Amino acid sequence: MNLTPDWVVGFVDGEGCFYVGFYAHPEMTAGYQVLPEFRVVQHYRDIKILYALKRFFKCGVVRKNHEDRYEFRVRKIDDLIKIVNFFEKHPLKTSKNVNFKKFAKIIRKMQKGEHLNTEGLKEIIKTSLEMNTRNNPIAEKILKEIKRETG
Amino acid sequence: MNLTPDWVVGFVDGEGCFYVGFYAHPEMTAGYQVLPEFRVVQHYRDIKILYALKRFFKCGVVRKNHEDRYEFRVRKIDDLIKIVNFFEKHPLKTSKNVNFKKFAKIIRKMQKGEHLNTEGLKEIIKTSLEMNTRNNPIAEKILKEIKRETG
Repeated sequence: MNLTPDWVVGFVDGEGCFYVGFYAHPEMTAGYQVLPEFRVVQHYRDIKILYALKRFFKCGVVRKNHEDRYEFRVRKIDDLIKIVNFFEKHPLKTSKNVNFKKFAKIIRKMQKGEHLNTEGLKEIIKTSLEMNTRNNPIAEKILKEIKRETG
Repeated sequence: MNLTPDWVVGFVDGEGCFYVGFYAHPEMTAGYQVLPEFRVVQHYRDIKILYALKRFFKCGVVRKNHEDRYEFRVRKIDDLIKIVNFFEKHPLKTSKNVNFKKFAKIIRKMQKGEHLNTEGLKEIIKTSLEMNTRNNPIAEKILKEIKRETG
């Protein structure tokens, strides 16, 4: 199955997700790890589409998501740069594009290693709080902790 | 906002729905009305996309769906023929295409008026039962009633 850029944009406008997670990680300078992810989840019956996306983007993996659902997901920063470049060249048409732009800003910062210092991490968390994902309570908690430590 | 055929196919692969409903209608020969529908539902924040689809297909309406959700929907048979023609020329890539083909079969039968006699209605209901929509209990009930009446 060959996908075209326009089809991929349309499908991701419907089914794609740009997510930034934060996890405690004492060994890192800023105390937290930033884990951005691009994913598309489908029922098992459409697993072929997930593999077609993997071939299309030439990166990522197909893994089980939950019960009978599978996901195509990209987590490596170098690969996420490819994803960001693609959706900058071929913009999403729904309001998901607003979210994507914030995601892209975070990926660019991480590419420069800005997530590895406390100041950079703070900026990244602030940007993530503007995204309509569900990690806001965790991100807000981390932001408060960083502020308490660094003033 | 201008949509391309490939984007529309990708978006409908994700968000589109082909549905066939059945309703009791004593004034019709077969006793039931067949109401096929193509729809795309979005949150209000993406209502622009629904209007863009309406312009793209040159038919259908944008209406409230439920709470903060809106839908682009097509119900007129002549307009559904346009929709069917489009997705026959530009096939869906997910398993939704299996469903679409059964929908298309029903629309073609309705175009010929076959839903207006009991035998044709039976065939349409049988095809609809092969679709993965949620009207199966109603369709099965009607099929049983028709069988009881006509033997």
